[in-house]
Amino acid sequence: MEENTSPLVVPVDPRRGSRRGAALDELRVTGGFWEHLQRSNSRSTLRHCLEWMERLGWIANFDRVADGETDRPRPGWPFSDSEVYKLAEALVWEHGRTGRAWPNETLEALVDRIAAAQDDDGYLNTCYGHAGQAERYSDLSSGHELYCTGHLLQAAAARVRTVGEDKLVEVARRAADHVCREFGADGRAGVCGHAEIELGLAEFGRALGEERYTEQARLFVERRGHGTLKPIALLDASYFQDDVPVREATVWSGHAVRALYLAAGAVDVAVDTDDAELLGAVARQWERTVESRTYLTGGMGSRHQDEGFGEDWELPPDRAYCETCAGIASVMVSWRLYLATGEARYADLIERTFYNVIAASPGADGRSFFYANPLHQRTTAADVRPGEVNPRAEGGVRAPWFDVSCCPTNLARTLASWQAYAASVDGDTVSLLQYAPGELRVALADGGDLVLRVTTEYPREGAVRVEVVEAPTRPVDLRFRVPHWADGATFTDGSGTSAVEPGWAHVRGGLEPGAALTLDLPVTPRLTWPDPRIDAVRGCVAVERGPLVLCAESVDLPEDWSLAEIRLDTAVAPRADGDGALVRMASVRTPPGDSGRPPYRSAPTPRLDDGSSIRDVQLIPYHRWAQRGPSAMRVFLPTA
Amino acid sequence: MEENTSPLVVPVDPRRGSRRGAALDELRVTGGFWEHLQRSNSRSTLRHCLEWMERLGWIANFDRVADGETDRPRPGWPFSDSEVYKLAEALVWEHGRTGRAWPNETLEALVDRIAAAQDDDGYLNTCYGHAGQAERYSDLSSGHELYCTGHLLQAAAARVRTVGEDKLVEVARRAADHVCREFGADGRAGVCGHAEIELGLAEFGRALGEERYTEQARLFVERRGHGTLKPIALLDASYFQDDVPVREATVWSGHAVRALYLAAGAVDVAVDTDDAELLGAVARQWERTVESRTYLTGGMGSRHQDEGFGEDWELPPDRAYCETCAGIASVMVSWRLYLATGEARYADLIERTFYNVIAASPGADGRSFFYANPLHQRTTAADVRPGEVNPRAEGGVRAPWFDVSCCPTNLARTLASWQAYAASVDGDTVSLLQYAPGELRVALADGGDLVLRVTTEYPREGAVRVEVVEAPTRPVDLRFRVPHWADGATFTDGSGTSAVEPGWAHVRGGLEPGAALTLDLPVTPRLTWPDPRIDAVRGCVAVERGPLVLCAESVDLPEDWSLAEIRLDTAVAPRADGDGALVRMASVRTPPGDSGRPPYRSAPTPRLDDGSSIRDVQLIPYHRWAQRGPSAMRVFLPTA
Repeated sequence: MEENTSPLVVPVDPRRGSRRGAALDELRVTGGFWEHLQRSNSRSTLRHCLEWMERLGWIANFDRVADGETDRPRPGWPFSDSEVYKLAEALVWEHGRTGRAWPNETLEALVDRIAAAQDDDGYLNTCYGHAGQAERYSDLSSGHELYCTGHLLQAAAARVRTVGEDKLVEVARRAADHVCREFGADGRAGVCGHAEIELGLAEFGRALGEERYTEQARLFVERRGHGTLKPIALLDASYFQDDVPVREATVWSGHAVRALYLAAGAVDVAVDTDDAELLGAVARQWERTVESRTYLTGGMGSRHQDEGFGEDWELPPDRAYCETCAGIASVMVSWRLYLATGEARYADLIERTFYNVIAASPGADGRSFFYANPLHQRTTAADVRPGEVNPRAEGGVRAPWFDVSCCPTNLARTLASWQAYAASVDGDTVSLLQYAPGELRVALADGGDLVLRVTTEYPREGAVRVEVVEAPTRPVDLRFRVPHWADGATFTDGSGTSAVEPGWAHVRGGLEPGAALTLDLPVTPRLTWPDPRIDAVRGCVAVERGPLVLCAESVDLPEDWSLAEIRLDTAVAPRADGDGALVRMASVRTPPGDSGRPPYRSAPTPRLDDGSSIRDVQLIPYHRWAQRGPSAMRVFLPTA
Repeated sequence: MEENTSPLVVPVDPRRGSRRGAALDELRVTGGFWEHLQRSNSRSTLRHCLEWMERLGWIANFDRVADGETDRPRPGWPFSDSEVYKLAEALVWEHGRTGRAWPNETLEALVDRIAAAQDDDGYLNTCYGHAGQAERYSDLSSGHELYCTGHLLQAAAARVRTVGEDKLVEVARRAADHVCREFGADGRAGVCGHAEIELGLAEFGRALGEERYTEQARLFVERRGHGTLKPIALLDASYFQDDVPVREATVWSGHAVRALYLAAGAVDVAVDTDDAELLGAVARQWERTVESRTYLTGGMGSRHQDEGFGEDWELPPDRAYCETCAGIASVMVSWRLYLATGEARYADLIERTFYNVIAASPGADGRSFFYANPLHQRTTAADVRPGEVNPRAEGGVRAPWFDVSCCPTNLARTLASWQAYAASVDGDTVSLLQYAPGELRVALADGGDLVLRVTTEYPREGAVRVEVVEAPTRPVDLRFRVPHWADGATFTDGSGTSAVEPGWAHVRGGLEPGAALTLDLPVTPRLTWPDPRIDAVRGCVAVERGPLVLCAESVDLPEDWSLAEIRLDTAVAPRADGDGALVRMASVRTPPGDSGRPPYRSAPTPRLDDGSSIRDVQLIPYHRWAQRGPSAMRVFLPTA
């Protein structure tokens, strides 16, 4: 076994290329937006996930296999094991980041139960292959066995990097070896209906230095797209990306989370095998998908039917699916592309998605979540009761658990490792990508530490102050990401203040302890217009503030107004107010149509209003919507 | 057994109320739009359905039950029996309308095979209750057994009215009796996940004069809405209208075909039991649904996920579901409400739906069909091959058969009985509702015949000429429906020409043989604006011509234009051209956004065009789209 002497505590650690993410133990976040969410995750969400999965029997499914009691009906979907693994990964990161005992002890207890369910040959799944169950791998399209294993491997890779090899890692190794035996070059030429095993194998292979796992990941990536998966009723092969090989696809389509997990695995394989063609293909897919199939929030997936991408320009705000897990998966892909290329645009999309998809999902209690993240909610659900499972947490009410409850555990592992996406190191260049107050202590590859103290109220305020606490005596470079939207940003150092363009603010060489540097990002509210090819929001505009997409929520409207009949006056600039904005709006009344006629008229509808119908209305950050009770909401506001 | 002496050859024959539809044998259509479709149905669609269902084994499923060979895997969905019954109903009407031998012989052969599968106690279903199958009624949510029986009863009711009692009727009677025993007041208090048994029982009861069947239909209607159906994964009780009792619902929601079949059954029950409250409830549901959840085409159902209604104003043109069967079901409800009330608006919606949903589904060959009828198609399917089943006939290509192939047989029975919706009789008042060339010979209740000869090129031309061939000597009334959109209609009789308002043009008394009457409907193209609350088509306008919704199809655009970037010049009135229109359009070019950024901008997109980009563009009737090969299409046109 190859010794892994100094593992980097990061979720993604490519074999090739000198750029790396800052490790979880290099960046301490001491307050602000993300520390708040991490605290809520730590205090509430992790326990919440554990409690629900105990209550529903998803963890006990492992005990049943261990106890040979599998011929009773099994609770949970076939893929419920993956939820347990995602929670395990969350606990690993939580322990790795904080060093606290509870996550570690909880993890170890969980691993004991998982390990007991592993078959002698390494196969590990609570839904298949035992008495009373369907045969192993008898339904690759829907069975999710390899998908589950992929999540086990991600958790184990995290464990290798935080504490080294242990029981979880050993279980994962045996499971990975089993997969390689079954699905290797000489084994069955199948793929899983839900991608995930690819990136799991790649990351676990990186963590252990096992190239066999990378090779198996490569095989899975190359095998997909040849129509080998049996179609699922009413869904075609694009649903699981089995219609076109990854290196031939030009855009993402089908089920969004599947497409994105597959892309992440493909980048891992491309980077580790130095496959520029494959990397270029995924980068081009990212580009077209971002440019024509991505919401203002960063959300991906515009169809409910297959939880999938729509066509170019098909971006309805009301039926936006924008699954929380797709947001997380998008960050996973963008982060890998950032590490591979160093391009700021990937970090830009990560920021947009973190603030407007990922942060929108959990409620203030850390125990309720959005599954879909639409940009327009017309009415509120009457029938969702707090504390109850509901299928998709629709209707403007976060739910404690869903029928397919993939998002809470995915959030838990992502929030527990947020700092992994905040900075990167490439030789003697350190890049600050996401801004939060705290301390960054980076061990540079050529020796010496760079220690920075960051002070900021971002995103509420735009100033990001960095004090150099410690720096090597040789020149090192520091880069601040200047987000795409930050027209008018300035940068201040010892020599004065100057304008900086979106992209990077560079400080080349000469970092002296005690030096103070300030990036000032404009966080005044601004209007944002959709591309005119997006039919669903024609004639509308959105308001953003810094990285935050804002929205109008029904509870902030005058009582006799309706979100269906507001008009934004774009001639009046939105003004900052709290962390949201005040905008000038009019309420219009639609005169009634003819009784019993479809809602189409022989002339444009006259606008009915009077002087009293113009008001300043509060907009709030989108991620906070529906926190004051069920509400209606819209991001895109019709213009006057 | 009650004798049924002079049955009326109509699909809906209420027990109460004096208004009735003109019978199939009272109205002979001799040419024009609907005769053309009836001929195609007659020559192609009926045989096509028969061939496909033989090939797929859906008919042979009955043989298997008869032969006791049910322990092999059964082809088709659980509800495939209903397709056979809908084809049977189509054959009954086809025979009833034409008197031809082929449909009758084909039906009788089919009935022999159906009858052989009936169990001794009357239960008849090829998917449940036999060796190797799940138990009878073990899955009311998804099993569709009562749904299938409902279609059998509709076919049998049609048979009673066209030829009288025969083997099909006897089979149906035994099936209906079985349902009454199992699900009667003392039986199990269940309902079927898919409504249909209600209207089947009501109509069959009417045809046979069996009040027990009406009572059973009433029980089913009243039982629904109390959450007794086990939910189907990810769908809630509203999917099958089990969330709110019919008499308490205010709007249609959930699966559109289910909601509409249920409403049709509820009207039948309300009328036959003189339940004004129930009738009023359905009429109010119709009104709100039409006013806020109905497409310009008359299409209903805006969600793919559950084939269901969206919320008020949720009417996206691109993801419009507008299932062909929902259009048919909407006609079934509107027709019943028309018979109950005599209000022209119901016939208006029927016309809109016939021309723009039902007529849009079949291809010119009568052997390919649309399942969904969206109002905007951005791209064409690359992967649909003629002759192949495809799940939903999406992508702008009609398919010969679908995975769930409910629409072809539903079309077949509806087209075979089109004239049933074209005129009505109430005492001595005859109302012309839909216009086609031919002869109407109505036996009036108080004696005597009214015989009219209709000459018209409608909808291509607006003149409807009626010659009185025969009339009683006493005064009788004749009404012409003047459609809602017909501003500027005129009516000409012996005394001259006068303007008529939408609603009715009455000719009271004094119908003399030889008299000539002409209704002139304006069929010049006109602009139609959507209600401003329909977010998805803000800033757009549609063009209609007479009852026809028009559309722009990609094949009619200059080669370098794109449907994503056209703008209609509303200042130039559309001009009639063929049966479509010519409109003035501009092509605009969207300047490229920033590479790798989501499609939202810091300023409105400048319009790039030059003088050469303005053209007259052909619009065609929506129902004819995609008949010149796969195409992109849009009904709502962005304005300049």
